[in-house]
Amino acid sequence: MLPRGRPRALGAAALLLLLLLIGFFLFGGDLECERGERGAERRGLGSFPCPLTPRVSAVGRQPSSGALDGDPSAGRWGHNHSDCVPPPPPLQRCELLHVAIVCAGHNSSRDLVTLVKSVLFYRKNPLHFHLVTDAVARNILEMLFYTWMVPAVRVSFYDAEELKAGALALLDFFLPQVSWIPNKHYSGLYGLMKLVLPAALPPDLARVIVLDTDVTFASDIAELWALFAHFSDEQVIGLVENQSDWYLGNLWRNHRPWPALGRGFNTGVILLRLDRLRQAGWGQMWKLTATRELVTLLATSLADQDIFNAVIKEHPGLVRPLPCIWNVQLSDHTLAERCYSGASDLKVIHWNSPKKLRVKNKHVGYFRNLHLTFLGYDGNLLRRELFGCPSPPPSGAEQVQQALAHLEEEDACFEFRQQQLTVHRVHLTFLPHEPPHPRPHDVTLVAQLSMDRLQMLEALCKHWPGPMSLALYLTDAEAQQFLRFVEASAVLSARQNVAYHVVYREGPLYPVNQLRNVALAQSLTPFVFLSDIDFLPAYSLYDYLRASIEQLKLGSERKVALVVPAFETLHYRFRFPGSKAELLALLDSGSLYTFRYHEWPRGHAPTDYVRWREAQTPYRVQWAADYEPYVVVPRDCPRYDPRFVGFGWNKVAHIVELDAQEYELLVLPEAFTIHLPHAPSLDISRFRSSPTYRDCLQVLKDEFHQDLSRHYGAAALKYLTALQPPRGPA
Amino acid sequence: MLPRGRPRALGAAALLLLLLLIGFFLFGGDLECERGERGAERRGLGSFPCPLTPRVSAVGRQPSSGALDGDPSAGRWGHNHSDCVPPPPPLQRCELLHVAIVCAGHNSSRDLVTLVKSVLFYRKNPLHFHLVTDAVARNILEMLFYTWMVPAVRVSFYDAEELKAGALALLDFFLPQVSWIPNKHYSGLYGLMKLVLPAALPPDLARVIVLDTDVTFASDIAELWALFAHFSDEQVIGLVENQSDWYLGNLWRNHRPWPALGRGFNTGVILLRLDRLRQAGWGQMWKLTATRELVTLLATSLADQDIFNAVIKEHPGLVRPLPCIWNVQLSDHTLAERCYSGASDLKVIHWNSPKKLRVKNKHVGYFRNLHLTFLGYDGNLLRRELFGCPSPPPSGAEQVQQALAHLEEEDACFEFRQQQLTVHRVHLTFLPHEPPHPRPHDVTLVAQLSMDRLQMLEALCKHWPGPMSLALYLTDAEAQQFLRFVEASAVLSARQNVAYHVVYREGPLYPVNQLRNVALAQSLTPFVFLSDIDFLPAYSLYDYLRASIEQLKLGSERKVALVVPAFETLHYRFRFPGSKAELLALLDSGSLYTFRYHEWPRGHAPTDYVRWREAQTPYRVQWAADYEPYVVVPRDCPRYDPRFVGFGWNKVAHIVELDAQEYELLVLPEAFTIHLPHAPSLDISRFRSSPTYRDCLQVLKDEFHQDLSRHYGAAALKYLTALQPPRGPA
Repeated sequence: MLPRGRPRALGAAALLLLLLLIGFFLFGGDLECERGERGAERRGLGSFPCPLTPRVSAVGRQPSSGALDGDPSAGRWGHNHSDCVPPPPPLQRCELLHVAIVCAGHNSSRDLVTLVKSVLFYRKNPLHFHLVTDAVARNILEMLFYTWMVPAVRVSFYDAEELKAGALALLDFFLPQVSWIPNKHYSGLYGLMKLVLPAALPPDLARVIVLDTDVTFASDIAELWALFAHFSDEQVIGLVENQSDWYLGNLWRNHRPWPALGRGFNTGVILLRLDRLRQAGWGQMWKLTATRELVTLLATSLADQDIFNAVIKEHPGLVRPLPCIWNVQLSDHTLAERCYSGASDLKVIHWNSPKKLRVKNKHVGYFRNLHLTFLGYDGNLLRRELFGCPSPPPSGAEQVQQALAHLEEEDACFEFRQQQLTVHRVHLTFLPHEPPHPRPHDVTLVAQLSMDRLQMLEALCKHWPGPMSLALYLTDAEAQQFLRFVEASAVLSARQNVAYHVVYREGPLYPVNQLRNVALAQSLTPFVFLSDIDFLPAYSLYDYLRASIEQLKLGSERKVALVVPAFETLHYRFRFPGSKAELLALLDSGSLYTFRYHEWPRGHAPTDYVRWREAQTPYRVQWAADYEPYVVVPRDCPRYDPRFVGFGWNKVAHIVELDAQEYELLVLPEAFTIHLPHAPSLDISRFRSSPTYRDCLQVLKDEFHQDLSRHYGAAALKYLTALQPPRGPA
Repeated sequence: MLPRGRPRALGAAALLLLLLLIGFFLFGGDLECERGERGAERRGLGSFPCPLTPRVSAVGRQPSSGALDGDPSAGRWGHNHSDCVPPPPPLQRCELLHVAIVCAGHNSSRDLVTLVKSVLFYRKNPLHFHLVTDAVARNILEMLFYTWMVPAVRVSFYDAEELKAGALALLDFFLPQVSWIPNKHYSGLYGLMKLVLPAALPPDLARVIVLDTDVTFASDIAELWALFAHFSDEQVIGLVENQSDWYLGNLWRNHRPWPALGRGFNTGVILLRLDRLRQAGWGQMWKLTATRELVTLLATSLADQDIFNAVIKEHPGLVRPLPCIWNVQLSDHTLAERCYSGASDLKVIHWNSPKKLRVKNKHVGYFRNLHLTFLGYDGNLLRRELFGCPSPPPSGAEQVQQALAHLEEEDACFEFRQQQLTVHRVHLTFLPHEPPHPRPHDVTLVAQLSMDRLQMLEALCKHWPGPMSLALYLTDAEAQQFLRFVEASAVLSARQNVAYHVVYREGPLYPVNQLRNVALAQSLTPFVFLSDIDFLPAYSLYDYLRASIEQLKLGSERKVALVVPAFETLHYRFRFPGSKAELLALLDSGSLYTFRYHEWPRGHAPTDYVRWREAQTPYRVQWAADYEPYVVVPRDCPRYDPRFVGFGWNKVAHIVELDAQEYELLVLPEAFTIHLPHAPSLDISRFRSSPTYRDCLQVLKDEFHQDLSRHYGAAALKYLTALQPPRGPA
């Protein structure tokens, strides 16, 4: 707002003088304001509005909230002093903001996603996330961010496991500093990683916001970043005061917390001046303090927070207290109400109780709502670009954009091609999962489903005790329903060897083969059983398949697809046959049929059910047009063709591919799987009736055959000739 | 920030002088800033950040956006002049903001809900909505807001229909002013209602924000309200410049738009100083202008907007131009990109094309995301209170809170009682619906469903051509899926006599009887057929019921419940019998059974299927324990008991109530309905296995019987004795 014209030098000088004078007055005014406010509060009068740090809104009406209001001890360490200062200089337009988060395991990864959604929802700046993770979280989050493709977001990973293993020399340097500290806090060792961030993060990174995974943003993170501008030259750590009496040491007899300034500070939200911390020898500083305290206090019960507080108690000048609304702590005996009861504008909520959202608190419903907003929020909507801040497109996004731009809207298959090009957000192992022990003949059941088949999962678990890799096509809100569904089921929660991979919905067509490929790629055993969710395998199938694989000496050297014959029942109350003999009896009595016997016998005819009745040993069958058996194949089998979306020809094309690659088709004499009846899914019924759908499927088939000829040459000709009459169903 | 101490009078005087001087400099600086910015843009340099009105963020980085950037004609009428002014004085804390919206019909009502959600999401002030509605919208919105129970929100209705009918003398005064204007705009006559708001709204209301239903907020509405502070003494209407060339009159040959200042203004977002408009004789003013223009321009093609613009052209001093980000117009040939391309902070998006979200625009995906955020957003989450601004609880909320507070968490039925007390948000007639013509023997089919039964609707429509009243238990996101489902179905979109009432999900148990009561209360025919969604009635049932009602001379004087015998098939592929004879044949061949023949024959035994086989005329049957037939009753029949949530005893209790009120039970000899098989819903399976569930159901039954004795005295004793052995199923 200063005049910028050169001839105005004199005016500028005069203005400078004026500003100095004003500064004096404003400063005096602020002190006065603070005193006036406290006085008014004590007298129960309306407040004198007192500008906070930062001034966030034209409608700025925040009450004083630097420390717990009304607490006579507040302000003793200058907490409140920070509330009444002039607004910070605005951020540079499009300034890149850095955020560091420590995250380990499946559950924390889910929490992190919700936190990131809340940050992205309100942000208007480019962001760089620095994620310190274990192998599980890295696997999940790398795929998630890669497929999320949010513009103007960068992600770097720092391997906490490698730290521990001492594998990287750089990280090895400070690892021992952390691992010797005994730690009782429920978040485990990972909380302590925050102490080593100044050394672990890139040396040219000067500032970072450090967040716990259990916080939720309710405003633009740039407002938090702007608080760096208030740090004095000495201050290096910005923290919000603790909103419980823990560190006062009077919670119970012999309660001996670590030393802290008064109530201490909470480390769920930290502003770190990394440059100054490095200069000040932070590594030595916290290690010295921690070592000294550990002599008398054997364990840290709150992980990094104890050590941060102990260091701050020794060096109070390091800390910049932040307004309480930037870390509203909903712990069990929280005093946070003193902070939020008068505030119209909460910025960050912190679920710092082991009970998380189930914590008792008379206003917990209010806060839970803010959190639930982002749990169920469609993450795809956060892919929006920042108009104000041009930034390079996320990795892979440009190719997708170009491919999409080449599609023609007049093309009858436009919707199909668009769907095929869609990059779905993928959250691998959405729930805790233990990888199976490596066994040479083990088999993973691979399938995909959407919400309307959730009730199949329990039965499937009872029929298949082995590992499963399931792709679930869900919205963000449905993923939460799914989570609750599993938690409520004793059968499902008992299983650790079922991996659930959430693929987030986008577009009108069900991307069946993309889903299969996700589940297939995540299988960890040498063999996979490629099934469908509405089939229940024979109870013995898992054991029988492993035994067969062993007996047949299958391995990567032999390309074999074991065929599991498929049957169906039309009754929805149904007694599952315990053996092949029982199954044959049901078949003879008309209670069971071979699969799709009435509508499309060609799909399974080559399995040769007549021969199967009598078979005692595996027998070889030949591929024929439209064959789509359920098979067991090595994990490195060809992927499904993603061009087939919606319903139709998705499995057929895969079997063609297996045959083209000369897989032997061996039918197993004791194996069977049975299709259960169900109402047609909405995904099917929407498209079955459409003539465009059938026409387009034909186009896609033709293209598939062209590609096949290109890959396999003359050998692929048989597929084309076999295809012609009669035409297959959609 | 001024010093407040009395002894500082001298200091204050000095400060005042200083402020005056600064004001001069700041003003000069602003003009300079604007010039600098425009110059920088032309040279392609970085911008000189220029504070906007209002200054909304500590991180304020908005570019100049008062008019279409880079447009040389902008600023001619001082549009840009408004951009660089000092920040407005902050609002009074908790100031009540007034918003007026004109809304008519089913589709606009849905739009309005999405708009209101976006406003509530960001708001931090109490709000008063003034809704000018037709009868349809009022019916929907009254129920919606009543059941929504959002704290610190008031709603007043103004009846547009009554305006038209001239029924109210007060409104009659200005009605003729509107109805004589011919109007081509797609929103119909209702757009013109905005012109009469100064007269229609309460005379003591001084300011109001007027919104179209097709806008979406992306920020706190208080920031928009704060712009009133910038109005000069003469200015009365705040508007954003039109972001298309419409009013320039060069879109095609002989394109003759109404007169406007340059590009004119868009009336999707208006700030009205009602007090000054009334003083200035607005009513006369716009009528005079409109009359004069209508002589040459026969119709208004953009409704109120043409007239507002014509008045402004004559009286340019009335208008206060607003920054373009407060009404980003996504019409077909929008120039809005000039506004948003540099802005990091859009405030309001306006879907002002008849194509709405399907409008072509290279960034439409970005804006659609903002809109979709609120389409699918769980409105229950907006029930959160305003901590900063204490306000009286919404009507009815206090009783609910008290009742909930009296529940004991240790009570085994805690979850049931909590669910029963839950007030679900209700959106009546979610889709366009035409009430049936009044006919004395007409019957409405009443049922309820959740998402997993959606695929039943088409078949049901084919079986029942008559009116239906269906309650759907959905999340907000599911309601949108449902909308798309109906739009994609030729069968469903062709039906105008099916009323879909959305009851929004909340709580773990399926509130089956609350849903039934919603559907029942909204039935508009003298009789209702109380059915369930997984039953398909005989094709002839609708006609047969009406004929039977006529023949039996049923009316409100005779309490009769007509029993429709229920059957079931266990096959999921099934040929529906065309007649009673065909049905009996299927029954004899074992393809059909009487309903729940295997699990719970008591539920329908009193229907006496043996007698029904031979019956030629209706016959009377007696109530017996656990009887739960499907019946046709007068619309004023007893309501379902809402204490039965989840699954179990919900229909049984209703039949008991009918019997207690001495309804005759008459079985119809040609009527039948057939239950189709389906996978158990998630809602059922979650609770069927729980022993608490069964125990609690028994407690609820006992309480039901106690209430029955209280109401009906000794006569109710038979229900208690009949109940004892054997115990019914859950």
